[in-house]
Amino acid sequence: MPYVNVRITREGATAAQKAEIIAGVTDLLVKVLDKDPATTFVVIDEVPLENWGVGGVPTEEYRRRTRPREASAE
Amino acid sequence: MPYVNVRITREGATAAQKAEIIAGVTDLLVKVLDKDPATTFVVIDEVPLENWGVGGVPTEEYRRRTRPREASAE
Amino acid sequence: MPYVNVRITREGATAAQKAEIIAGVTDLLVKVLDKDPATTFVVIDEVPLENWGVGGVPTEEYRRRTRPREASAE
Amino acid sequence: MPYVNVRITREGATAAQKAEIIAGVTDLLVKVLDKDPATTFVVIDEVPLENWGVGGVPTEEYRRRTRPREASAE
Amino acid sequence: MPYVNVRITREGATAAQKAEIIAGVTDLLVKVLDKDPATTFVVIDEVPLENWGVGGVPTEEYRRRTRPREASAE
Amino acid sequence: MPYVNVRITREGATAAQKAEIIAGVTDLLVKVLDKDPATTFVVIDEVPLENWGVGGVPTEEYRRRTRPREASAE
Repeated sequence: MPYVNVRITREGATAAQKAEIIAGVTDLLVKVLDKDPATTFVVIDEVPLENWGVGGVPTEEYRRRTRPREASAE
Repeated sequence: MPYVNVRITREGATAAQKAEIIAGVTDLLVKVLDKDPATTFVVIDEVPLENWGVGGVPTEEYRRRTRPREASAE
Repeated sequence: MPYVNVRITREGATAAQKAEIIAGVTDLLVKVLDKDPATTFVVIDEVPLENWGVGGVPTEEYRRRTRPREASAE
Repeated sequence: MPYVNVRITREGATAAQKAEIIAGVTDLLVKVLDKDPATTFVVIDEVPLENWGVGGVPTEEYRRRTRPREASAE
Repeated sequence: MPYVNVRITREGATAAQKAEIIAGVTDLLVKVLDKDPATTFVVIDEVPLENWGVGGVPTEEYRRRTRPREASAE
Repeated sequence: MPYVNVRITREGATAAQKAEIIAGVTDLLVKVLDKDPATTFVVIDEVPLENWGVGGVPTEEYRRRTRPREASAE
């Protein structure tokens, strides 16, 4: 009866990608713990970038600091 | 001092329905555990259908499989 | 397909009380939102008192301040 | 490796205020528990007022009852 | 920068099984969404059976009803 | 009316340290967002090391890989 909450930054994950995550996590729990897929929930939360902090700063600021070239190219 | 998080799929729950859930959960905690309503939080999250998986697939796909007629009628 | 997480302080809730909360929350979601009980999860977390803060202090300190007599009588 | 989830009502917190919360929570965990900021996540959820209940009623109703003058002045 | 919370009933999952879940979920997020494993957290919560409800009853009661033979054989 | 959930690995945080986190987070929300401490909850969850994964492996394995000397010294 697992409940899995996947929290990611909102950056355009497609419905197909989200379906792939739902399938993959469910398969994993069936394989490793013999869980019943019918009572396995996978819930994805997409969080705005400015609401997600790491290293003490919001995600975009964090990326500018740690990956300067990529960020300026975006 | 309870905190209750009610997570449902986003399918048009009205403000009145949400108020009824908030009242009902709070009353239950007062009745069963003698909690103080003033320090009881009930927070409802409405999750997009494509972000909620069950049975290894997103909710709408799950409903098509398990309740074929209803789904096609929607 | 609701998922409800009820978080309370760990203060000796009995299995019967927890079953009553599970039943009550599920009934409420069936009644108000026509949810299917078979895909409704209610998960109760019991949190140690020293890990739950309110008013800027742990629960026991908060109770001493706001309900001085009860706390000393306990 | 902390994960902190800050849930507040959605009432116009600015990006600067959210950045201040991210910085403040991270600094606190570094100072008190010697955590590494690089593996400290702070995720802010902004919840619609009608989805947040306290005292058995949605937030706005709660404010009308407990702070009648302020609420009518808003 | 994903955060994944896997909640399961506490029924003796081994450290090896938990490591397999951590690896599997991380790999999935790398493969599907190109996430960086170094900033991917997977946190497993094991919930006592009497604290997890489904179908309006605690898990063990639910299993007795839906899988009567297995439960009596356990 | 904030609810803050601080999740850390279980590694012996003391009651005093937890009280300091509760106070610090509450003060921050009062200062930055003018929240009322009386309706601010801070809940700390301590997660066993083998249940917390980062970089695709449980925490202890992760530390051995990234901080080899410290880990062997522990």
